[in-house]
Amino acid sequence: MLKVFGHLNPDTDSVSAAIVYAWLLNEQGQEATSYILSKPNKEALYVLERFGFKKPESLQFLVEGDEVVLVDTNNPAELPDGMAFVTIKEIVDHHKLVGGFATAEPPIITIRPVACTMTVIWHRMQELGVVDIPEDIACLMLAAIVSDTLKFTSPTTTQEDKDLAKKLAEIAKVDVEELAAEMFAAKSDLTGMSARDLLLSDSKVFDMGLKKIRISSLETTDTLPALKMEAEIIADAEVLKQEEGLDGLFFFIVDILNSSATLLLVSDFEKEAAQKAFGAITEGNRMVLPGVVSRKKQMVPPLEKALS
Amino acid sequence: MLKVFGHLNPDTDSVSAAIVYAWLLNEQGQEATSYILSKPNKEALYVLERFGFKKPESLQFLVEGDEVVLVDTNNPAELPDGMAFVTIKEIVDHHKLVGGFATAEPPIITIRPVACTMTVIWHRMQELGVVDIPEDIACLMLAAIVSDTLKFTSPTTTQEDKDLAKKLAEIAKVDVEELAAEMFAAKSDLTGMSARDLLLSDSKVFDMGLKKIRISSLETTDTLPALKMEAEIIADAEVLKQEEGLDGLFFFIVDILNSSATLLLVSDFEKEAAQKAFGAITEGNRMVLPGVVSRKKQMVPPLEKALS
Repeated sequence: MLKVFGHLNPDTDSVSAAIVYAWLLNEQGQEATSYILSKPNKEALYVLERFGFKKPESLQFLVEGDEVVLVDTNNPAELPDGMAFVTIKEIVDHHKLVGGFATAEPPIITIRPVACTMTVIWHRMQELGVVDIPEDIACLMLAAIVSDTLKFTSPTTTQEDKDLAKKLAEIAKVDVEELAAEMFAAKSDLTGMSARDLLLSDSKVFDMGLKKIRISSLETTDTLPALKMEAEIIADAEVLKQEEGLDGLFFFIVDILNSSATLLLVSDFEKEAAQKAFGAITEGNRMVLPGVVSRKKQMVPPLEKALS
Repeated sequence: MLKVFGHLNPDTDSVSAAIVYAWLLNEQGQEATSYILSKPNKEALYVLERFGFKKPESLQFLVEGDEVVLVDTNNPAELPDGMAFVTIKEIVDHHKLVGGFATAEPPIITIRPVACTMTVIWHRMQELGVVDIPEDIACLMLAAIVSDTLKFTSPTTTQEDKDLAKKLAEIAKVDVEELAAEMFAAKSDLTGMSARDLLLSDSKVFDMGLKKIRISSLETTDTLPALKMEAEIIADAEVLKQEEGLDGLFFFIVDILNSSATLLLVSDFEKEAAQKAFGAITEGNRMVLPGVVSRKKQMVPPLEKALS
């Protein structure tokens, strides 16, 4: 039985891609089950509930001999340590190649430079001759594209993502504007979330030069609640940096509606690096970055350059 | 301009895949040129000449900023050191994942567990909507499948490789039996080849446990000329091991027509490992292994197990 899962920060794309890909494997006559590695974010939970999907079971541990399929990641840092003991049968992803995994046998690997894992899965569907997408699967796929492209506004968006979303919206019989509004509202609800939750809800660690850097992004339609927590976030970021031996932690509050980010600068290290990377004005502990929404395209590359 | 190339031991699949993939990229409106990294083997040269293709230019060095497409390998050990400075845009391969490469941006990666790179390229062709294969391109693709599957006898052969070969043979208007006979005769011609040439003509280095192991395979329709060079080969293998700091070197003379290998045992280390791996009888410096033809499926796994 193949275990299908995404990264340790289950967002809409990651959770939905695991469900959709397990479905595709089942369609091919393969036994496969989707899993999550931790608690999905609020947007992902909203999408599952709205379209009548059960939350995948949580994968407690990996066992030697497990056969796994990775979606939405090829990065060991975003996966459990137990990965060293399992067999990777397949990877479906849209991120840069990290190069952390090896296999004993030739696997199936499909990585494409598109905004959403679903667009890569669509390639696989066509390759496997599965072109009739059931309505509920189309709903999940559409939601993931809306999420990962921030409703087609992120610079990662490709024509392929847009074309697929259009096709899916017809099958799903869903109004994309309304779906996006609901999803973004769910994602923007910070009720019950601590500073640590905000720091880790959508966060990745990178090696940049010789530095270990965490880049966290909080996508929201309303930046105020997060900005009000500035002091707590900065204080907890310092604790997190020490706990994890991080050299820097960059926390971007992304205003989805206005395509803009406010970077909270948690110490002088981040201030200097951000100055070098973005060349924008620092006001107190904040740097406003109009147009910046994508970690992959707009946060990582300039920071990588500044720190290398 | 994309530079398209395969591994450092250009065989029929590797050289032809570079030419075919550069053609496919050109068809997509991308500037791309195929290269080789060293002298192609005699079978590959025969195939190029027979079907009217010029030998690709030799890639002398890689330059920072080069954009490259890898075919038939994803392994840094099979590629020049300069790879560290180039941008990998795409990988098309059918080998196990080595995990040695990283990229700064999401690349296009297509790895499928089939016998021949051409079968993976056929997937890409369909994905890109290119389904009309010109006759000369079909000839190269067919030759590569015949080569990598040892005319469909290797255990790596999949139904997909066979189906594609059948389709290609119709387009190419080529008799597969006759083509295979000519190709294997070209490959079996050892005229002018030194022991070192034989040891390195189709050879890969592996880390097995803590050992550095070279596994060389000489595919031939006539094992006699190579067997006659046994003493020279064993003597030169010892020199090569010292030069390269190898712990072991396994040289398999593969009888294509009878699907059998004779392993030349160059020292006690290889004798003991081969006993453990294959459990066959050693006669002098030779171990006959009926049915063994594939490095990927039949040589590497047992040796890996024996040495780990």
